Amino acid sequence: MTITPPALSVFETLESEVRSYCRGWPAVFDRAQGARLTDEDGHTYLDFFAGAGSLNYGHNNPVLKRALIDYIERDGITHGLDMATTAKRAFLDTFQNVVLRPRDLPYKVMFPGPTGTNAVEAALKLARKVKGRESVVSFTNAFHGMSLGSLAVTGNAFKRAGAGIPLVHGTPMPFDNYFDGQVPDFLWFERLLEDQGSGLNHPAAVIVETVQGEGGINVARAEWLRALQDLCHRQDMLLIVDDIQMGCGRTGGFFSFEEAGITPDIVTLSKSISGYGLPMSLCLFKPELDVWEPGEHNGTFRGNNPAFVTAAAALDAYWADGQMEKQTLARGEQIEQTMLAICGEHDSARFRGRGLVWGLEFDDPARASAVCARAFQLGLLLETSGPQSEVVKLLPPLTITPEELDEGLRTLARAVRETA
Amino acid sequence: MTITPPALSVFETLESEVRSYCRGWPAVFDRAQGARLTDEDGHTYLDFFAGAGSLNYGHNNPVLKRALIDYIERDGITHGLDMATTAKRAFLDTFQNVVLRPRDLPYKVMFPGPTGTNAVEAALKLARKVKGRESVVSFTNAFHGMSLGSLAVTGNAFKRAGAGIPLVHGTPMPFDNYFDGQVPDFLWFERLLEDQGSGLNHPAAVIVETVQGEGGINVARAEWLRALQDLCHRQDMLLIVDDIQMGCGRTGGFFSFEEAGITPDIVTLSKSISGYGLPMSLCLFKPELDVWEPGEHNGTFRGNNPAFVTAAAALDAYWADGQMEKQTLARGEQIEQTMLAICGEHDSARFRGRGLVWGLEFDDPARASAVCARAFQLGLLLETSGPQSEVVKLLPPLTITPEELDEGLRTLARAVRETA
Amino acid sequence: MTITPPALSVFETLESEVRSYCRGWPAVFDRAQGARLTDEDGHTYLDFFAGAGSLNYGHNNPVLKRALIDYIERDGITHGLDMATTAKRAFLDTFQNVVLRPRDLPYKVMFPGPTGTNAVEAALKLARKVKGRESVVSFTNAFHGMSLGSLAVTGNAFKRAGAGIPLVHGTPMPFDNYFDGQVPDFLWFERLLEDQGSGLNHPAAVIVETVQGEGGINVARAEWLRALQDLCHRQDMLLIVDDIQMGCGRTGGFFSFEEAGITPDIVTLSKSISGYGLPMSLCLFKPELDVWEPGEHNGTFRGNNPAFVTAAAALDAYWADGQMEKQTLARGEQIEQTMLAICGEHDSARFRGRGLVWGLEFDDPARASAVCARAFQLGLLLETSGPQSEVVKLLPPLTITPEELDEGLRTLARAVRETA
Amino acid sequence: MTITPPALSVFETLESEVRSYCRGWPAVFDRAQGARLTDEDGHTYLDFFAGAGSLNYGHNNPVLKRALIDYIERDGITHGLDMATTAKRAFLDTFQNVVLRPRDLPYKVMFPGPTGTNAVEAALKLARKVKGRESVVSFTNAFHGMSLGSLAVTGNAFKRAGAGIPLVHGTPMPFDNYFDGQVPDFLWFERLLEDQGSGLNHPAAVIVETVQGEGGINVARAEWLRALQDLCHRQDMLLIVDDIQMGCGRTGGFFSFEEAGITPDIVTLSKSISGYGLPMSLCLFKPELDVWEPGEHNGTFRGNNPAFVTAAAALDAYWADGQMEKQTLARGEQIEQTMLAICGEHDSARFRGRGLVWGLEFDDPARASAVCARAFQLGLLLETSGPQSEVVKLLPPLTITPEELDEGLRTLARAVRETA
Repeated sequence: MTITPPALSVFETLESEVRSYCRGWPAVFDRAQGARLTDEDGHTYLDFFAGAGSLNYGHNNPVLKRALIDYIERDGITHGLDMATTAKRAFLDTFQNVVLRPRDLPYKVMFPGPTGTNAVEAALKLARKVKGRESVVSFTNAFHGMSLGSLAVTGNAFKRAGAGIPLVHGTPMPFDNYFDGQVPDFLWFERLLEDQGSGLNHPAAVIVETVQGEGGINVARAEWLRALQDLCHRQDMLLIVDDIQMGCGRTGGFFSFEEAGITPDIVTLSKSISGYGLPMSLCLFKPELDVWEPGEHNGTFRGNNPAFVTAAAALDAYWADGQMEKQTLARGEQIEQTMLAICGEHDSARFRGRGLVWGLEFDDPARASAVCARAFQLGLLLETSGPQSEVVKLLPPLTITPEELDEGLRTLARAVRETA
Repeated sequence: MTITPPALSVFETLESEVRSYCRGWPAVFDRAQGARLTDEDGHTYLDFFAGAGSLNYGHNNPVLKRALIDYIERDGITHGLDMATTAKRAFLDTFQNVVLRPRDLPYKVMFPGPTGTNAVEAALKLARKVKGRESVVSFTNAFHGMSLGSLAVTGNAFKRAGAGIPLVHGTPMPFDNYFDGQVPDFLWFERLLEDQGSGLNHPAAVIVETVQGEGGINVARAEWLRALQDLCHRQDMLLIVDDIQMGCGRTGGFFSFEEAGITPDIVTLSKSISGYGLPMSLCLFKPELDVWEPGEHNGTFRGNNPAFVTAAAALDAYWADGQMEKQTLARGEQIEQTMLAICGEHDSARFRGRGLVWGLEFDDPARASAVCARAFQLGLLLETSGPQSEVVKLLPPLTITPEELDEGLRTLARAVRETA
Repeated sequence: MTITPPALSVFETLESEVRSYCRGWPAVFDRAQGARLTDEDGHTYLDFFAGAGSLNYGHNNPVLKRALIDYIERDGITHGLDMATTAKRAFLDTFQNVVLRPRDLPYKVMFPGPTGTNAVEAALKLARKVKGRESVVSFTNAFHGMSLGSLAVTGNAFKRAGAGIPLVHGTPMPFDNYFDGQVPDFLWFERLLEDQGSGLNHPAAVIVETVQGEGGINVARAEWLRALQDLCHRQDMLLIVDDIQMGCGRTGGFFSFEEAGITPDIVTLSKSISGYGLPMSLCLFKPELDVWEPGEHNGTFRGNNPAFVTAAAALDAYWADGQMEKQTLARGEQIEQTMLAICGEHDSARFRGRGLVWGLEFDDPARASAVCARAFQLGLLLETSGPQSEVVKLLPPLTITPEELDEGLRTLARAVRETA
Repeated sequence: MTITPPALSVFETLESEVRSYCRGWPAVFDRAQGARLTDEDGHTYLDFFAGAGSLNYGHNNPVLKRALIDYIERDGITHGLDMATTAKRAFLDTFQNVVLRPRDLPYKVMFPGPTGTNAVEAALKLARKVKGRESVVSFTNAFHGMSLGSLAVTGNAFKRAGAGIPLVHGTPMPFDNYFDGQVPDFLWFERLLEDQGSGLNHPAAVIVETVQGEGGINVARAEWLRALQDLCHRQDMLLIVDDIQMGCGRTGGFFSFEEAGITPDIVTLSKSISGYGLPMSLCLFKPELDVWEPGEHNGTFRGNNPAFVTAAAALDAYWADGQMEKQTLARGEQIEQTMLAICGEHDSARFRGRGLVWGLEFDDPARASAVCARAFQLGLLLETSGPQSEVVKLLPPLTITPEELDEGLRTLARAVRETA
């Protein structure tokens, strides 16, 4: 595929220097369907990125699209703050019936604003209010968002520096396997909590991703998550699972923590919850934590009703039975086979993953970027992650076909070979 | 109008106690057009609230609706992070040609995430980075958002308490007319800045709303805004105008600060920028301030392309000439006449406003709530604002017809009378 | 007087650049008595500085000296932490009988460490603990100390910058007469407290000096102090009077706040409390505030017993009757006459003061430094204060004779004339 | 020995509840000599506490006493701020000749105020200023002082809670042997520093005690200290050794870090530096770090000249040759023998120590308190330390005779036996 230089001038002259993805993917995208995007010159790209996990059901999923257009056509409420609407009620009913009840999850549902960081901010506020303590523990290489509350529990030094103020009230602890198994889980964390002389401010809560996406596809073991939950119970800390990227089926089950058999006190969801790439997020918590006063946290776009419509449609279409989970695990095995093959050929590479999120790490961080750049030339969208961008991240739509997945994996393998 | 109890049970059992609007307006809204909403029982409501300023062009504006459906039908990119897309390019071109260039505004454009608080967080980060200082000055009764960075410069004690941590790095200064003219403008602020012994941490920036909406419809005079800009220049502080609620024509001109003839260093826009109630926000700043590194601030939904489509359509339809501004000012005069009449009859009421944002303040805060409650019974949506909810806030769509406006104002006058 | 260059080399090579007084007074002092110091070359200096208020009874006061030597000779406890000692008991008994009981002051006594900043840190800790709030209000041009807690409520920008972290949890309010009477007292402060939308974190306490020494000899009026106390009561804030420099008789009465007839909730004392220039400080508070746990605040040198001995001797010698207060006020009048004369001759000078603390302010800050430099050449020790060092500060020992005072004042007048 | 109830009433009624030592030692002490105190009833106590390390040369050491009385008799300057005085010059000369030069230490000397916490506050300010970063790493069970800057790097949860504000900008790391050797030294710390995604704010400095006194007599190995110094160099962090309790010969050499062969960037000294229990402290730092502006840090009692006199006398008397160090190590061995014997008899006890600082830890924390209480009844002053007060701390004067030491150790052994 040959790329002619796209007409990027207005982006380069008018848009801020902060823009990033458009630098690595120099194309002007025009339309998309399922796992494929098309740019304005007619080139198509296979998508192993899926809106950073916001497009689990593919681009412009036809089932959701139909529901969305119908809703708009009939002048359904678009913007509703937290007014009661028929669309919101339908979403709540569906969420309860399809997601919460079958999993025996007791959560109350909060609409904290339409983005992931809104949900994290709400979760942290609530935990602090409930426990009357300021400090929150996060994990090495965590990513929770860009507003100040979320950024303070995010690991990336470059992002943190953007805050312009010292980020406090958060303390990092080692994520699972941070020391390659040579240190017992939670040795440091638990000792600090038990030692009245440790100097650790006792945390209100712990916030964790079961699989760290931005942090480099670091997969927490189920037993580690269970031990973390136990530690939280013993030490009077709330457990917050940030399931913004890994929830909505990315790892197989609807929630990424289901496999571990834990029930977090607070859960954040966003990205693929609307199913159509529309901004929406949720903050879920055990009913006894619902100590909010009316309006104590609010936000203009917390009632994005078109998103409620596609969200309800997505739950109905994909989560009424267990098919989606099975399919995701099957596709994951397909990826794992390719990963094994690639790493068999390339000593400098390692892989890890779960469900449909996988990472291919290279000894030389520059190699990961080179792989992504080459993949783009070959028509495949892939991005890096990890503290040094040393990991190629695979995040295809869950609805990708085995053939598309195979095509993309072959392109990936070729890009790895050609950058050796 | 008689309201039968709506089917609210799922909201009451499943949704968090934090919900607020649905408490004051016990109806389940189903669809909407222009300045009218309809609930599931077929009752209609005239809207003097407009999505808290997010629906300046009315609900489901037909021009924008057509553009939106066309875009969805043709599988335009929905979710784009900050990838270049044809929809984003069209928006940028239109924003430059219709908004920035005619006003001779030199701004770079940043997409900081789709909500107002994302834009404020980005503005504060940038100001702190540029100046290398942590402190920011805000004003009494300011409202800038609910994430921790924005909340620290927000005045409301109830909202602030929700933070769960001490909110620091922000210092309040008196908004225009805070002392009813008995103290010279900026006497306190300027003296603190000039006095090397004052104890004020020198601020990186000042953040201000030209009209405080949540704070009680407090209208800054043009000369006060100009003096503030002068003070910022003299004292090496950046001037941030938060135009999230008052921009996009709410006060007449596209930006609320145009009338004062100032050029803020940084401007935030959100709410009505998409025109259709879809989540979208912008952070604008002078080019010399564009010191962001690529990706230093990011966010999953900063490329909400359907919103770009309706935003461009709204700019084309309403801002290509000066008609909208004239019409808004004319409608504003219509409101002012009614306000004069109401306050003439009721000693305990005062009013203030500009363009199509007006406030009716009562000596007894409970009266304002009573007026809104009665108005709801009479089919008019109105909310209160101000630190004690003592102000009835009028925020009708800019596209409301004179007849609708008249109808709503008559209902308001009746509600005032009937709560006397 | 001619000064030959002193042997300063070890100070210049070994001592840190942070040293300050030795730069303005290039002499090596050797011994001192009453209001006079003598350098190693035999030159004498009249002291209008008194150890920055630590030597109210003059250098090496013979009464105190006798008690001190006796105590050392008999091997009295020198270092006692907070062990009970006979010296400490004698001090406590004397303090109660001579100071607290005659003034009907109900205070408990805490020994927070031997320096002023230890006492301020303890006062702030206690206020925050009692009220459960973090924020403290201080005043423009306040000086409370150099450790981080005290520095956060200190006004001077140069000192604050030394912290190396953003100083938060403190908010400055205008000191008495900050706007030359054109703004009603506490207008701004009270309005912020009453307005639930002001953005001011409700303070645990207010900390104030009745006369700001470092801040430029700013004298609060008695009615302002009373109004401040009223405001604190109405708004549930503790009133802390920092009497470190102005207590122990500097303004006439033993406590500087006696004249106003107020009873602060917490009082800090240091500087002249030992009477001999030995490190000692006290934190006094109403008994109902004594919620400290044993050892919750501590410090190695909080039991400096030689200081207790001289402190008790000083109280016995000078405060058993009302003579000291009368004498101080008389000496103050002597100063005031000279000040009137100086300012009558020099339009560019203004003065203010109370008791035996006076300031002579010049339009041109450099003039104040020049006056002090010239005075030094003429054998008089004087330092500047104020945010721009624009005020010549007079702080002679309270025990200075009228003749010595007259001599010093004549020297001052000459220095003013000769720097015109 | 029988103790009749002492006359404690004024302490109980007038002094704050914060008092602590006087609770455990219900006696009113009157005078002291060498290693013995005498109360007002004539009972004598052997001192294994030494003013918490402030009386390394014993109470009222005759050599120092002579120098002190001579100085007072001749009206030497008592209070000097940072004026040049002959006493200060003599101290500086002696400190350079006896302490710094023979050890080849390049330090500049700062007088930051007379207490340990003043010195720590100055050290932290300087480190932050030099590096332009806010964060400082301290260690588990560290103790650095009670003012807010020092408290933020102190481990004890009870002391920290007294702050009344969240203590931030400090992060604890595991002290040597925190995990009984099962985790490689600095594994966690170094990994956090190297990982750009760890979430650790890069520290300006590390502050460490070579032996943690309050923390429970935790002795860092020389190789751990050397590795810490290496880590600081590699990671651009300043190394601050807080030698307030362990310096001045407590562990053998004048500085406790000499044995490890390291040269910290900044050193704090206090407690025994004056030698006589008089308040004095020093902050030492490499000359290239001396970026202070004149007066940027100050304090009223930083020129406590009587303390300079005794300090110089102590250095002359005890540190002109290597005798003191040898004697301390010999006395230490004497203690170690007893400790071995005690722990041989009592399974529930362990000991650790260095020089003349030793700790005897019990499985049951209450036992340690019981031992100290019984020792007091037997005429021996001993206090506990450690996060749960589980360690009996031995801190006798360095000048104690072998016979006195033996007497005390026998009393200790008896107290241990009698509390079994």
